[in-house]
Amino acid sequence: MSYVNDINWLDEVLWNEDGLVPAVAQEYGTGRVLMVAWMNREALRLTAAEGRAVYWSRSRGRLWRKGEQSGHAQVVREIRLDCDNDVILIDVEQTGGIACHTGRHSCFYRRLEGGSWVVVDPVLKDPNAIYDATPDVPDGED
Amino acid sequence: MSYVNDINWLDEVLWNEDGLVPAVAQEYGTGRVLMVAWMNREALRLTAAEGRAVYWSRSRGRLWRKGEQSGHAQVVREIRLDCDNDVILIDVEQTGGIACHTGRHSCFYRRLEGGSWVVVDPVLKDPNAIYDATPDVPDGED
Repeated sequence: MSYVNDINWLDEVLWNEDGLVPAVAQEYGTGRVLMVAWMNREALRLTAAEGRAVYWSRSRGRLWRKGEQSGHAQVVREIRLDCDNDVILIDVEQTGGIACHTGRHSCFYRRLEGGSWVVVDPVLKDPNAIYDATPDVPDGED
Repeated sequence: MSYVNDINWLDEVLWNEDGLVPAVAQEYGTGRVLMVAWMNREALRLTAAEGRAVYWSRSRGRLWRKGEQSGHAQVVREIRLDCDNDVILIDVEQTGGIACHTGRHSCFYRRLEGGSWVVVDPVLKDPNAIYDATPDVPDGED
């Protein structure tokens, strides 16, 4: 065992003052950026250990296994770290082809056109058909 | 003019307590996620107005026109906003094919493998050949 192995890979991440880093989820195959959420140390550890995306819900103050309510989980193929150690990029297979709580493929479904944000991507599935009658889905988390 | 036009598109963005949002730069054509940086209201306004990526440098406390020192500017083709209004995604043409201050294509050049972050992308150009003798490039900004 070299000394390198004494440094945990999680220690190399520069967590912000709240102990979080942004995590970008990109879809394997299409390359589409699906969403950006936050991870704390435990969320990133679990993402690697379980091979599925686990985020930290800032609104709910708890770990959030993507798809825990919607079924739209993300299977993680690859985890990357950026040059200044404060952003994570994960390559994922998006279960159901829907990442967004609005029922769209990606959360980035609005484009700036002529000074307005215009919806340019279709709803693939009615959110009412995705979630329970009383969903606990604040801030677009599912 | 409808009432909708009275709402500036910049007002729809949910800036954080520091007046910032994360901005993901994705490369047109390859789909590669090149980097994530921060924008304040003025940076986003200028990005749209000038058609090139302008970020807010947290370390320098000023606007940062990507490529201002390296020449590796980003021509912006599209600007998107996510479902909860707090992340920007820009589609860019990366001048020189190098987004990272390390001389690599993308800032996400390390991959988690066997519990370590492993460099998996090559340096395309020596950083010493990109920057002046006394570069002012903190935190990977150029």
